[in-house]
Amino acid sequence: MTDSVYLQDIPLEDAWKIFRTELEKRGLWSVLEVEEVPLDQKAAGRILVEPAIAVRPSPHYHASAMDGFAVRAADTLGAMASNPLILTQPGQMQYVDTGDPLPVWADAVIPIENVEALKDPQTLAAEKDARLASLIRIRAGVTPWSHVRPVGEDIVTSQLILASGTRLRPADLGAAAAGGLSNLRVAKKPRVAILPTGSELVEIGAEAGRGEITEFNSMVLAAQVDEWGGEGVRYPVTVDDFDLICRCIQEAVDQSDLVLVNAGSSAGSEDFTARAIEKLGRVYVHGVAVRPGHPVIIGFVPRSIGSAPTLEVPVIGVPGYPVSAALTGEIFIEPLVRRWLGMGEPQPQVVKARLTRKVNSSAGDDDYLRVVIGEVNHQLLAAPLSRGAGVTTSLSKADGIVIIPRHIQGLEAGETVDVRLYKPESELKQTIFAIGSHDMTLDVLAQALSVYRRRLVSSNVGSLGGLIALARGEAHFAGSHLLDPETGEYNLSYIRKYLHGTPVRLFDWVGRTQGLVVVRGNPSKIKGIADLWREDLSFINRQRGSGTRVLLDDAIRRLGKTARGIRGYEREEYTHLGVAAAVQSGRADCGLAVQAAASALDLDFIPLFAERYQLVIPVQNMATGLLDPIFTLMRDSKFKSEIAKMPGYDTRNMGNEIEWTEST
Amino acid sequence: MTDSVYLQDIPLEDAWKIFRTELEKRGLWSVLEVEEVPLDQKAAGRILVEPAIAVRPSPHYHASAMDGFAVRAADTLGAMASNPLILTQPGQMQYVDTGDPLPVWADAVIPIENVEALKDPQTLAAEKDARLASLIRIRAGVTPWSHVRPVGEDIVTSQLILASGTRLRPADLGAAAAGGLSNLRVAKKPRVAILPTGSELVEIGAEAGRGEITEFNSMVLAAQVDEWGGEGVRYPVTVDDFDLICRCIQEAVDQSDLVLVNAGSSAGSEDFTARAIEKLGRVYVHGVAVRPGHPVIIGFVPRSIGSAPTLEVPVIGVPGYPVSAALTGEIFIEPLVRRWLGMGEPQPQVVKARLTRKVNSSAGDDDYLRVVIGEVNHQLLAAPLSRGAGVTTSLSKADGIVIIPRHIQGLEAGETVDVRLYKPESELKQTIFAIGSHDMTLDVLAQALSVYRRRLVSSNVGSLGGLIALARGEAHFAGSHLLDPETGEYNLSYIRKYLHGTPVRLFDWVGRTQGLVVVRGNPSKIKGIADLWREDLSFINRQRGSGTRVLLDDAIRRLGKTARGIRGYEREEYTHLGVAAAVQSGRADCGLAVQAAASALDLDFIPLFAERYQLVIPVQNMATGLLDPIFTLMRDSKFKSEIAKMPGYDTRNMGNEIEWTEST
Repeated sequence: MTDSVYLQDIPLEDAWKIFRTELEKRGLWSVLEVEEVPLDQKAAGRILVEPAIAVRPSPHYHASAMDGFAVRAADTLGAMASNPLILTQPGQMQYVDTGDPLPVWADAVIPIENVEALKDPQTLAAEKDARLASLIRIRAGVTPWSHVRPVGEDIVTSQLILASGTRLRPADLGAAAAGGLSNLRVAKKPRVAILPTGSELVEIGAEAGRGEITEFNSMVLAAQVDEWGGEGVRYPVTVDDFDLICRCIQEAVDQSDLVLVNAGSSAGSEDFTARAIEKLGRVYVHGVAVRPGHPVIIGFVPRSIGSAPTLEVPVIGVPGYPVSAALTGEIFIEPLVRRWLGMGEPQPQVVKARLTRKVNSSAGDDDYLRVVIGEVNHQLLAAPLSRGAGVTTSLSKADGIVIIPRHIQGLEAGETVDVRLYKPESELKQTIFAIGSHDMTLDVLAQALSVYRRRLVSSNVGSLGGLIALARGEAHFAGSHLLDPETGEYNLSYIRKYLHGTPVRLFDWVGRTQGLVVVRGNPSKIKGIADLWREDLSFINRQRGSGTRVLLDDAIRRLGKTARGIRGYEREEYTHLGVAAAVQSGRADCGLAVQAAASALDLDFIPLFAERYQLVIPVQNMATGLLDPIFTLMRDSKFKSEIAKMPGYDTRNMGNEIEWTEST
Repeated sequence: MTDSVYLQDIPLEDAWKIFRTELEKRGLWSVLEVEEVPLDQKAAGRILVEPAIAVRPSPHYHASAMDGFAVRAADTLGAMASNPLILTQPGQMQYVDTGDPLPVWADAVIPIENVEALKDPQTLAAEKDARLASLIRIRAGVTPWSHVRPVGEDIVTSQLILASGTRLRPADLGAAAAGGLSNLRVAKKPRVAILPTGSELVEIGAEAGRGEITEFNSMVLAAQVDEWGGEGVRYPVTVDDFDLICRCIQEAVDQSDLVLVNAGSSAGSEDFTARAIEKLGRVYVHGVAVRPGHPVIIGFVPRSIGSAPTLEVPVIGVPGYPVSAALTGEIFIEPLVRRWLGMGEPQPQVVKARLTRKVNSSAGDDDYLRVVIGEVNHQLLAAPLSRGAGVTTSLSKADGIVIIPRHIQGLEAGETVDVRLYKPESELKQTIFAIGSHDMTLDVLAQALSVYRRRLVSSNVGSLGGLIALARGEAHFAGSHLLDPETGEYNLSYIRKYLHGTPVRLFDWVGRTQGLVVVRGNPSKIKGIADLWREDLSFINRQRGSGTRVLLDDAIRRLGKTARGIRGYEREEYTHLGVAAAVQSGRADCGLAVQAAASALDLDFIPLFAERYQLVIPVQNMATGLLDPIFTLMRDSKFKSEIAKMPGYDTRNMGNEIEWTEST
C-alpha cells in the first residue's frame, strides 16, 4: 500500500465486490441489530425486521356497523311493506350505536332509518327519538349478520399483517394496533460517524480566509445518512496531524457502526486517511474509477474495546470535493445503510429523457452526470449541469443522475438516456427551461415563479445558442438581445434566420444598460471600448454567440478596429456575474456586462449601451399553461417594480408583444 | 345546525371551497409562521420560505484544481517537447495542493504529472519527491487560468441558490453553506393537536373488552401530520362528557394551529363534537359526500388567550372509523399543512392501471377506493381492496387510491383507471399477485418472499375464480385444489376447461388436511359431514367456486344428499381463517377448513380429507424472473420445514411439476 498516490483505480463493481466480501466475512452484510419500539413512539419510518403477526382479531367482538336496532334475523322473517312487524324491547330489539357490541342473543342490525319508532302505549313516550323507542315497526326482514362487522372482518388472529422489510407508514401502525400489537421489532438505526479532517477547514458561520474552506461536507453526509434511515453523527474537525487523526478514527470506530473520514483522501500532501486506516486496521480499496469520486478509500479497523471476537468496523475515506463526497454517499453508504436496515437495494425511479447537449466522458471511469429534467413539447429533456466536483449547485439543482459507463467516451446531444431520479416524476413537469442569454432578472423571475410552483432552470448559452436550442425544441423560452446593426432592431433578423419552421412570439422583457465593469474607483481610468487595446489592461470576454459579445464586436467594428490586441479577448465567461466576479477577484481589469452585475458585487460601472432584452417563446409552448405565470408576472406591478429597483433596468415595455412577419 | 344527524352532506369541492374561504378570511391560507434555523441543525426536510441568496462566492479565492505547480502562464510560453523549459522556485513556480490558494503572482497550475522534478544543483535534493522540487522541467505551456477554480466558479455573490418553497435536501444545505449562509428561513412546523374522544376507547397495549376499542387513530393521524412536515401532538382520550370535551377542545385550540377531534363525529348518540364546536365557535361544514369519510366536521374556534384580534383556530371533526380517519387526513389535513409550510398542492404520482374486478359506488359520493398494484404481462393491474371503513389492512396494503367521482355509479372489471400512488412506481413491479384458493401457507410464503424484495398480494377468490383470473391475465399464479371427483385428479380437468389458450405449468405446493373446525372440546359432538343436517347446529360455508366448497358439495353428493337442511349453508366466508373465526366467535358451530386454521385459533378439528394444493403458473409469467424466489423457496429445506411444522401440512412433493397434456 503506497500512501501518496491512489494506484488502485479499480472499477466500481470491483470495489463493491471487495467491500461486500469483506462485510460478509465479518457478518456485516445483514441487519445490524434489532430493537423493539412501541408503536406509538415514532415507529413510523422505521424498518420492520420481523413480521407483524396479529395476536387479536379486529373487530374483537361482533360490532354493529350502523346506528340501529340489534335483532335476531329469524324474528324479522316475513316483515313486508304490506305486512309490517312490531318488535319490542326487551327481548326482540335493542338500540345500538355504530361500533357497539351486538347483544349475545342478536345476530343482525336494522339501520335506524329503516324503522318507525312507535309511541309506547304504557309510557306514551319515544316516538320522536327513535333511539329511545321500546316499540319499533319494521317493513322488511334482514338476513343473519347483516349490518354487523363480525369478529375478524379486518384481521384474524395469527394473520400476517406486515411482512418484514416494510418501511412503516402511518396506516401500517394502525393495522398493527388493530391486530393487538403494541410494539414492533425494527432495525436499529446504524450510527455513522463522520470525521472531517484538514487544517484548512473552518466551521459554518466562521470567517473563511484565503486558503480556508468552510466545512460543510460532514453536514451534508450526516443529513444523507439521516435521510436513509441511519443516525449521522458529526465529529469536530481534526487538523492534519497523523497521530491525532489515528486517535480520532479509533475513537469513532469504538463508538459507531460505520466511520466516514472526509477529505485527506486525495493524493495531496495532507493525505493521512489511508495511512491512518492502514495503521489501525487494513485498507482494501484505494481509488475507484468513478467520476466524480475517484479517491475513495475502503478499509476496516478493529474496535479497541468490547468483547471477543473483536468487531471490525468499516471505515470509508470520502473525497473532499463536495460533489464527490455526496456522490460517494449515494454510491457506497446508502446501499450499506439500507442493507443494515433490512431494506433492499435502492430502487431509484428511472425515466428516459433526451440529452440537450453533448457530453464527453473519460474512458475508464463510470461518470455520474447530474442533470435537470423538464418536459418540452411532450418530450422529457435532460440538461447536463456543471461537471466540476466543486460545484455544489450542480447537486442542489439536479433532478437526477445519468451514469455514463466507463467503456463509453461520451454522449451525443439528442441521445436518449436513462435518468435516475432524485425527485418524484410529477415534480419534473413544473420545470420551465429558459435558455439563451443570461440576465440578472432571471433570478428574480425564478424566485417569483416558485410561488406559482414553477421552477425556472436557466442555461446560459448566449442569445444565439438560445435561438438554436428553441429550433431544436430544447427549451420553453429563450432570453435574447441580439442587435441587428443594419436595422437597429433586436432579435428579429436572427429569428427569421434560425427559427423558420418554429413559429414563435416575441415579447419585451427589460431594457437594460450594458457597460464596462471595473473595480471600485476605476484606478485604471477606463473610459470606454477604445481603452481595451491598452497594454496595461486585461479584459474578460463573454462567450461567442452571446448577445453581449455581438454588442462588443459591433462596437469594435464601429471603431474601425479588430479584436486583435485586446488582452483577454479569448477568455470567456458565461454570465454577467461571472464577468463581474472575474473583475472583482483580479483576474481581469474590466469586462462588458449589465449594470446590475457590477452593482451586485459592489463594483464600478461605465455605462455604454442601452439595449432591449426580449423573450422568444415558441407558440406550441404557450398552449400548456406552464408559462402562464410568466405572463401574469409581466403584468404584475409589484414584480415589475422589484426589477426596476435593480440598477440599469427599465420595465416600461415589459410584456409588450413585438408584431412581426416572416418576411422582412 | 342540528346536533343529531349530518344533514349537510355536501360535495367535497364545496366543503373545500367553504373551508378555504373561511381560512382566507382569517389570514390562514398562507405560510403560518417563519423561523430561522441553523443550516447544521436538522434543516434538512424543512421548507424554505425566503430565497437563499449567496453572500459569498464559491470558491472565495482562486484555488488550485489539481496537485501541481502554480505558475504564470506567460512564463510557460514556448515550452515544447523538443524545447523544454526550466522553472525555478521562488519566483516562477510554487507547489500547490488541490484546493490551495494560488499565489498572487500566479495565474495557472501545471498538474504534477506533467512536470519533471530536477535535482537542485545546489542542494542535490528533491528529484524523487516532486513536491519538494525547487527546479522543474516542463514540456508544454499552459493557458491562463487552466487547472484553476476561479472565484465564483460555483456560486457568485448575490446569486439565487435556492428559491422559496424548496424542500431542503442534504445537497441544498451544502450549496447554501458554500454561498456563505449559516441560517435559513423556513416555515414553522404547524402544531396539530389530536383529541381522541369516546368512553369506549382504551390505550394501545391495554386489554380491550367487549365494546371497548383500542384507540390508535390519534397515533395514525399524528404520524401522518409528522410525515407531511407538521408536528402531530396527541392528547389523552376524553370520555363522552360534553363539558369536558368543550374544555379539552378549548385547551387544544389555545395551544395549537389546528385541532382534530377524532370520533364522536358520526350521528350516533355520542356525537358531541359538532355541538362542542358550535358552542365554542362555529361549524361551517357537517358531513361531506365522500366515502369513506362522510361525517367530517369543519369549524373554527376562537382562542381564549392571546392578543387581539382573536385568532380563530380551525377545528376538524375526524370520523371514528380508522380508514375514514386516515383518508380525512389525506383529503383535508395534508393540503392545509402543506399550504402552511409554503408548499404547493400534494402532487401524487398517477399511473394508469386496469381494474381487476367490478366495483359499485354509491351515486352522490366521491368514493376513495384503495387498490393494490402489480404488473402482470406488461400490464399494470389495480386490485380493489376491502371497502369497509373499519378495515385497517386495506389502507396498510394499499399502493394507491382510485377516486370514483360521485356522478359515476361504479367501474367495470377491465376498465382503465387513474391510480394516485402512495409508493414509488418502481416498488410496484416487485408485487406478485397470487389469486385463487386461500391457504395458510401463503402468509408464510409472503414473509419468506419479503427477504427477496418481493411482496405477495393474495386475493382469495377461490380456486375456480383463480383459474378464470389467470385466463384474463390478472395474476402471476393461482393456488388451486379443485378435485375432479371422476378422476381423483386435482386441477387438470378445470385447467383444460378454463385455461385453454393460456399455457400454464402446474406444481405441487402442499398436501393438506381439511376437516370440520369446532370449538374446543367439541361440545356438540360433531363427527363428520353427516352431522351438518342436525337441527341444533349452525354451519359456516366457504364461497361458491372455492375448492373447499367443491370438496363439501362432493362429500354431500357422495352421502346421497343435497345441501337443503344445512343451517348456514348460504353464509359464506372467503378464507379458512374466516371460517375458524366464525366458529370461535360463536357465529357458527362448525365449518370446513384446513387444520392449520383451527390450530391458529386454538380450536378443535375433525380431520376428514387429505388433498393436494397446487400452484398454477402461466408460462409467460415465468420468464420475467419475478417468480424465481418462489422456486428457490420450494427447494429450500428450511422453508419447507417451517411449513411442515404447521399442523396438517405435508411438503414432500413441494415443487414437483405435474406433467400433463391439453388432451385427456
